[in-house]
Amino acid sequence: MERAGYVIWLTGLSGSGKTTIAINLEQELHNRGVPFVQRLDGDMVRSGICRDLGFSKEDRDENIRRVGYIAGLLSANGVATLVSFISPYREARDAARECCHNFIEVYVKCDFDTLVKRDVKGLYRQALDGKIPQFTGVSDPYEEPLHPELVVDSAGQTPEESVRCITAYLEEKKLIG
Amino acid sequence: MERAGYVIWLTGLSGSGKTTIAINLEQELHNRGVPFVQRLDGDMVRSGICRDLGFSKEDRDENIRRVGYIAGLLSANGVATLVSFISPYREARDAARECCHNFIEVYVKCDFDTLVKRDVKGLYRQALDGKIPQFTGVSDPYEEPLHPELVVDSAGQTPEESVRCITAYLEEKKLIG
Repeated sequence: MERAGYVIWLTGLSGSGKTTIAINLEQELHNRGVPFVQRLDGDMVRSGICRDLGFSKEDRDENIRRVGYIAGLLSANGVATLVSFISPYREARDAARECCHNFIEVYVKCDFDTLVKRDVKGLYRQALDGKIPQFTGVSDPYEEPLHPELVVDSAGQTPEESVRCITAYLEEKKLIG
Repeated sequence: MERAGYVIWLTGLSGSGKTTIAINLEQELHNRGVPFVQRLDGDMVRSGICRDLGFSKEDRDENIRRVGYIAGLLSANGVATLVSFISPYREARDAARECCHNFIEVYVKCDFDTLVKRDVKGLYRQALDGKIPQFTGVSDPYEEPLHPELVVDSAGQTPEESVRCITAYLEEKKLIG
């Protein structure tokens, strides 16, 4: 039987650890013999197909629409697709869900104090100082998922632990052996 | 061994038969047991990721850039990807080639008189009457491929014959069994 594709859609605030989890998960899936795994993250896609888009709500929505379209094509063709995008708007995420095969929304949750304390890229300090406009969680909204397939708490667990939650879910759904 | 992906990039004037060949080829590949075949054509992609683009050279180039990016992702993940796009500019096609895994440029050639005589969608009449601006082959240039992997003559052969040329090439390159 041909393998089924799926989309692991990691949503959460900047710095919550989405891409780190995606990279770890990609490695774990390769270790388990999954032949085709494709990561899509903000930087890759913005340079690939979204050079024209900024950070207004309208542009963010169009960005997510295109990513949803691509994830849909990949997942329909048996690819394990790992998307890490802030994707702050619920409606845009739900529209992406409609395009995709086996869409698994994973909310990478991290409390705000921890994010500000970590501030790996120094972006929260700048955003709180008003130097970055439209920064999600500070000057722009983040709409928490209402019914995500999974929630991982990246303040309380390591990326490896988050990956184990996701692979356990994939096993349960028989999407990996 | 995991199968290799590839991109069959069908280029040629409007009405030359690119999409008909792609549809026939898709069916033939399915008949041969190729599990994942994805067609991408102008209408699909314009509604999916290129809603913002028109028909200026700049917009056509950006359109092809995005299609090349997507075909690259699909072909890297083992998908037989069938692209049918006028894609009139050589440089844009060459850039798409760079993004893709096993890029096979197929020039669907048809002499102009035959195209005007067929005129399936009535577009040539309108373009020749000046009612459609930037119509490739009439009021906008088409740059013929200099070194395509294949040329199929759609004025002189049926779509089935064109498909046989393409599958023979794929067999020769060991991309299908």
